[in-house]
Formats: sequence, C-alpha cells, structure tokens
Amino acid sequence: MDVARGATQLLSSQNVGDLVDSVEAFLFDCDGVIWKGDALIDGVPQTLDMLRSKGKKLVFVTNNSTKSRRQYAKKFHSLGISVNEDEIFCSSFAAAMFLKVNNFPREKKVYVIGEEGILEELELAGFTGLGGPEDGKKTVQLKPNCLFEHEKTVGAVVVGLDQYINYYKLQYGTLCIRENPGCLFIATNRDAVGHMTDLQEWPGAGCMVDAICGSTQKEPIVVGKPSPFLMDFLVQKLAF
Amino acid sequence: MDVARGATQLLSSQNVGDLVDSVEAFLFDCDGVIWKGDALIDGVPQTLDMLRSKGKKLVFVTNNSTKSRRQYAKKFHSLGISVNEDEIFCSSFAAAMFLKVNNFPREKKVYVIGEEGILEELELAGFTGLGGPEDGKKTVQLKPNCLFEHEKTVGAVVVGLDQYINYYKLQYGTLCIRENPGCLFIATNRDAVGHMTDLQEWPGAGCMVDAICGSTQKEPIVVGKPSPFLMDFLVQKLAF
Repeated sequence: MDVARGATQLLSSQNVGDLVDSVEAFLFDCDGVIWKGDALIDGVPQTLDMLRSKGKKLVFVTNNSTKSRRQYAKKFHSLGISVNEDEIFCSSFAAAMFLKVNNFPREKKVYVIGEEGILEELELAGFTGLGGPEDGKKTVQLKPNCLFEHEKTVGAVVVGLDQYINYYKLQYGTLCIRENPGCLFIATNRDAVGHMTDLQEWPGAGCMVDAICGSTQKEPIVVGKPSPFLMDFLVQKLAF
Repeated sequence: MDVARGATQLLSSQNVGDLVDSVEAFLFDCDGVIWKGDALIDGVPQTLDMLRSKGKKLVFVTNNSTKSRRQYAKKFHSLGISVNEDEIFCSSFAAAMFLKVNNFPREKKVYVIGEEGILEELELAGFTGLGGPEDGKKTVQLKPNCLFEHEKTVGAVVVGLDQYINYYKLQYGTLCIRENPGCLFIATNRDAVGHMTDLQEWPGAGCMVDAICGSTQKEPIVVGKPSPFLMDFLVQKLAF
C-alpha cells in the first residue's frame, strides 16, 4: 500500500490527477490544513468530498492533544464536515495506543501534564490517568518541611499541550520520572507553537515537554508527528 | 590573582592549610553548601569565621534567582551569619549586571518569567521590568478572535525559577522573543532541580528556561553558573 507522506513536488493541474489515482489513503494535518483555530479553511469540504467520491481512505492526523477522537469528531461536525472517529488520529490517542501496543501494565497509573483529551483516550484504552485539568488549580509553597507526595504506582508521564501548566504539575511529573523506577516519559509531540486560536500562534506541547526535559534531564518518547510510532501504527491500521 | 574554582584534589588535614594560604578569595555556593532549604549546614559559621579571621575575601554565589542580594543578606542574617550585600552574587543580580555591562537601552523593557528577586535587581540597576509575580494570576482562554497583546518595547526576556509559572507568562515571553526584533533571551541558570525546601528537590530554572527554548526554538544567554559571564564578572570585581 502507498501512503502519501507529503508532496515531493508541487501539485499542478497536470499532476494532481496522477497523485490522486496513485494512492489509496490520504493523511491530513488539521491545524492550518483543515482549520485555523475554529475557522474552516477554504476549499476543504470540496476536496474531502472529491476524495471520498473516489473511494479514498482519509485520516485526519493532529498533534494537538487537548481533545480526544470523540471531541475532534464533534469539532469536525460543528464545521459541517462529516468525519468518523475512526478516521481521526490525534496525539492524545497516540499516547494511549503507544501504551497499549507496548503492554503497559494496567495496574500502573499514568500522570498527565495536558488536557482532557489525553485522560479520555487513556480511559478508553483501559488505563488509569491522574493529573490533567484537575491539577491545574493546585499550588505549592516552597517552605521548610514541605514534602511533595507523589504516587509510586505511576509508571508513565504523558506530556502534551497544557494551557493550565503550573509548578505543581511540573513537580509531580518530574518526581515520577526521576524517582519511580522505569517510569516512561511520553511526549504527545514537540511542536514549538500551534494555531490554538485563529489569529495567533501560541506555545505548543514542545514548551511543556521541554520543561520536563529541563527538570529531568531526560528525553521523551514522542508518539505524535513526526515519530516512527505514529507512521508505523497508521500504516498497519490502513493496511488492506 | 588566584580564585579557588573548586578543589582538583580531596582536601585533607595535610593540604587544607596550603589551600587556604594560597588563595585570596573563596566563592561559596549557597544551596546545599551554606544551607539546605532554610536549615544551616553544620560547620558553616566556624568555617566562614576562620576564613574571615585570615583576611580572605568571601563571595556567596547562588543560581537561585528568586531573591535579590538584599533578600539574601536578610536570609544569611536570619541564619545567624553576617554577610554584606556586596558579598552576594545571585543570578537575579547576574541578569541585571549582564544587561548593564552590555549597555541594554534604558528605554527598553525587560519581561520577567521568574520571581521578585529579578525585578528588584533590574530596578536597582535602572531597568524597567514587567511580568514576574504580577502575571502569576493571569489566565488566557484559547478562543476564536483571541489576540494576546504584548509590549513591543520589550528588548529582553529574563527567565529564572518561577513557582508561579503559567501559560500566560510562557506566551508573553515567547511572543517577545519571536516577534520583537533583537529581543534577548536571558536565562539566570539552567539548573534542573534545586533544594527549594530542606526535604526534597524541586524543578529549577532549567525547567522554565527549557520551556521557552521549546516554544521559541532558541537558546538562551546564561548568566549564572557555570557561565563565562559570571566568572569574568566576579574576577573583575575581586581584582586587587
């Protein structure tokens, strides 16, 4: 099976037909390709309709981990595009699939520096997530005799875009990675910035991931674009 | 002039006298050397008294940027040690001195991801600081038509340890570095962790600095240990 991994030459009216005929599945980025913030990009519905009419498989791949596949399907629908959850591959789902494929023990927990999407995908895959939005309001005070407790059963820390990042979460994730033997450090992606609104770029998951690299002196396993995990997983999923 | 830059051999009762006789100034780290959290380390007052009685110059160097020299002098006094502000070299002061030595324009502003110490040292050096603790309570909502405004007059972003780190500050600093022409990115230090309390290690400035590296894809100018700036500045200051 061929998967279009991005054009190696500019598309023109002469060669676009050849491209469409020669591949069976198209992977689309979402942010800046399908939409910018909450605004649909011109020409998208027509392009998708054309590809569907030719029987092509479509996969929508986004590094944004704030939503789950279910939440992304809802966003597509709100923009007037009909997309099935199975056609969506967001990095929150990628994190859960990485753990599943690698037989992460069900009795261990996963600490999340990130948003709701990661927790939802973890739960759907049968894992127990901690942290996330709930820890966004927690604070710490660096005073004598202050001991920060963390769960020793945490076997993985998943870090994604987190607009409620705080020192509490950074310390929690850092302690798990530094002190829990074998604890995995998983990054949904390392994008520097993203179009979180339609007008401006904002710090992406790369910001939170690098913060944890800074405090742990460790490098993460990246599960979103452009990781080999994501491409291997998709190719398997799309295999005929 | 000789400055003791750390022992190249283990000190023993045989050679400690030679070391003390052979150098004129001693640089001490604070965190883990003078104190742990707010607890004084055994033997410190006696050692300092002995060195002072021999007429040695003492300099207390700390990468912790949360306090100013004035605030550190107060901490020394609260632990029963008499230290002059001029003997203290904290990385908050280093950041201000870096700007001064490099003739940073007075009309430009400095955005601070960090705590009170940096703002106080900037002000003492005649610079205008923005951000810091004041921005610790600010939030953002990533919604359509959301445009984050930042001051175009910011010519430097100083990043240090910040227990009130949030997405607002990360976006502010990121925008200044990415969009204000020539804006400097200054790190007080890149320590992964520090003894912010006496019982445990906590994420250090390296965590916040790397977060900004992640969102800007730029490397900072480091002014604290182990930067050449700090050693050159101290050697000049201590020169007879």
